Amino acid sequence: METVSLGMILEARERLKKAVRSTDLVPSQILAIPGKREVFLKTECLQYTGSFKLRGAYNRISMLTPEERGRGVIASSAGNHAQGVALAAAKFGAKATIVMPAGAPLAKVAATRSYGAEVVLHGAVYDDAYAEACRIQEESGAVFVHPFNDPYVVAGQGSIGLEIMDANPDIDTVVVPIGGGGMASGIAAAVKLLHPEVKVVGVQAAGAPSMLESMRAGRIVTLKNASTIADGIAVKTPGDLTFAMCEKYLDEVVTVEEDEIAGAILMLLEKCKIVAEGAGAASVAAVMYEKFDTAGKVACVVSGGNIDVTTLQRILDQGLMKSGRMVRIHTVIQDRPGHLARLLAVISESGANVVSIQHDRTSSSSGIGMALLDLLLETNDFEHLSRVHELMKENGYPVM
Amino acid sequence: METVSLGMILEARERLKKAVRSTDLVPSQILAIPGKREVFLKTECLQYTGSFKLRGAYNRISMLTPEERGRGVIASSAGNHAQGVALAAAKFGAKATIVMPAGAPLAKVAATRSYGAEVVLHGAVYDDAYAEACRIQEESGAVFVHPFNDPYVVAGQGSIGLEIMDANPDIDTVVVPIGGGGMASGIAAAVKLLHPEVKVVGVQAAGAPSMLESMRAGRIVTLKNASTIADGIAVKTPGDLTFAMCEKYLDEVVTVEEDEIAGAILMLLEKCKIVAEGAGAASVAAVMYEKFDTAGKVACVVSGGNIDVTTLQRILDQGLMKSGRMVRIHTVIQDRPGHLARLLAVISESGANVVSIQHDRTSSSSGIGMALLDLLLETNDFEHLSRVHELMKENGYPVM
Repeated sequence: METVSLGMILEARERLKKAVRSTDLVPSQILAIPGKREVFLKTECLQYTGSFKLRGAYNRISMLTPEERGRGVIASSAGNHAQGVALAAAKFGAKATIVMPAGAPLAKVAATRSYGAEVVLHGAVYDDAYAEACRIQEESGAVFVHPFNDPYVVAGQGSIGLEIMDANPDIDTVVVPIGGGGMASGIAAAVKLLHPEVKVVGVQAAGAPSMLESMRAGRIVTLKNASTIADGIAVKTPGDLTFAMCEKYLDEVVTVEEDEIAGAILMLLEKCKIVAEGAGAASVAAVMYEKFDTAGKVACVVSGGNIDVTTLQRILDQGLMKSGRMVRIHTVIQDRPGHLARLLAVISESGANVVSIQHDRTSSSSGIGMALLDLLLETNDFEHLSRVHELMKENGYPVM
Repeated sequence: METVSLGMILEARERLKKAVRSTDLVPSQILAIPGKREVFLKTECLQYTGSFKLRGAYNRISMLTPEERGRGVIASSAGNHAQGVALAAAKFGAKATIVMPAGAPLAKVAATRSYGAEVVLHGAVYDDAYAEACRIQEESGAVFVHPFNDPYVVAGQGSIGLEIMDANPDIDTVVVPIGGGGMASGIAAAVKLLHPEVKVVGVQAAGAPSMLESMRAGRIVTLKNASTIADGIAVKTPGDLTFAMCEKYLDEVVTVEEDEIAGAILMLLEKCKIVAEGAGAASVAAVMYEKFDTAGKVACVVSGGNIDVTTLQRILDQGLMKSGRMVRIHTVIQDRPGHLARLLAVISESGANVVSIQHDRTSSSSGIGMALLDLLLETNDFEHLSRVHELMKENGYPVM
């Protein structure tokens, strides 16, 4: 099997200097534990195209012969790889065809087109798009750019590992999300071949643990389902190259739950002022929820930030509810003039802020002459929330 | 009057190296216009404490004598200055007392306390907190750290200007938000004293244009109101030092409207993957909405990212509505079994996503036997939205 040498990664870094940002390694005070751990965020969400995928795609396309470039490149992707290949191809003046599932978010389709790629929308899910890309590839003879199982793609992603260790040579642990394993393979190889004493930890979504299951089984395993809000790492089958490299170089693979990923997205947004997609937040979630021994200087790769605003809002809503800062309360009032105003005065006194009210006099649970109220409130924290509850009860309003 | 020399700013930069991040200057492809302009974001939202205020506070406190440090420092602030002074004082082992208005967001109070400051909550608005801080200062003899009208504070903020020009010596224009004018004065002095040919543009919220009005009047003007979502630059009266420096060094001062600031916050979040507060986004809004000649290489100071998540969500909601990606539609259906399902089938066919439904049979506008529906829908853009409208009308549902 082909493999990836340190030299290939070093070469990739040199090539990438023309087209890829060496993203900042940002210290996070909120994730630090004084005297125990420091945490640094490798901000690939601030990379061109909003994710690290440009690195591998650029390195792969840079290796094409003039004849191959003339034939153009093709890829299938619903997300970051599409934008990475599109921009990289544009840099080399090669035609890019990207097959995306028909349900891909319009923003991602538009972004891919904005780099000059031809976007073909086909099928409902990624697998359909992949099959169509293979069909077009056979017809057109374009070069297929694999999202992870390609030594030049892996070497390109490996440049992230070199940059982390250059920015802070004292790093003890590097934490990387794993989907197909391209980035994890490249970073782990770069780090281990230069600094064997540094620990490299891979993180998967608990809903899509294909690399972990494969490493446990000692062979490549295909998951039946891969379901997670971290869509960038929802991969059912690792590649053979990436599986072999992850087995060789990773110290540990851990998983994070959906609500932990959501918690990390909220924390990164609120405290670190960066937007991470689910896959990008997975590495941070593994540190926040201490999925491994996090002592020392820890670098988390925040691999991308391409998350829909509407998805982000849902995650923020859930995060606010979970932390006692937004709450839905049901109560009952007499269905007569003045009674709603009286309840609102009580809530105002409690310091909570009313976001929305629904008033329903037909609910069977409220009784004749009574109205059921559905209130959405902003509160400061759980302590404040329980004061709101108490004040409502003291004033005769049941809290349901 | 005291003033701020280039030497003071250079000295500040050297001192700050111990405690302050030299934040990244991030190129923004979305704000660029090929062949006409390039835009770079000075990401002070990724500074420790989430804003640039640490710079001035640290530089000011570094100049205290051991005896003054022993007396401690005091400041009044509802926001970023509180956190900046608290952290800077902690670095020098000085006691910090911060007076905040009682309504200050709990997250900001907690953050200020987390740096070891004593927080005194007093009064309803900033002016009350300021008066209380003066009272405590007289009693305790602590050193008052002014948020902007202080030469060492100004020199500290000026280090941002040096960093921008170091990171990219080809910058043609630097764009800075103006509240009290401390940061604008420092940056403008740094840039103009080293690179007189570089243009420096100040940006104020249209709802709080105190520096602009003062410059027009040729004397310091106090606004009656200062109301803007950019609370960090809602200042009614500039300082005498900062007014004199802004008059001397700024090429131009422009204003941005509330919806332009909100548009910039949404764009920075969605496309640039960074969280900016209103003040931080004002400089970007001035470029987005071309409030001045933006040709060439433009650096925008994104001064901070301390925005409440709930405020952010409201801004995102409004931004999505304004761009045709979320819409509230009213329609009328027959109030009989099956009719709601039929409408939902039509909406589903249109590709829109239902976020919420309210169903009201008692509305006077719907007529007997009819029910009024209030639908919140996610759509892709205005084109998609008008297809949804058409499909609804074709199927007999009025859109109101």
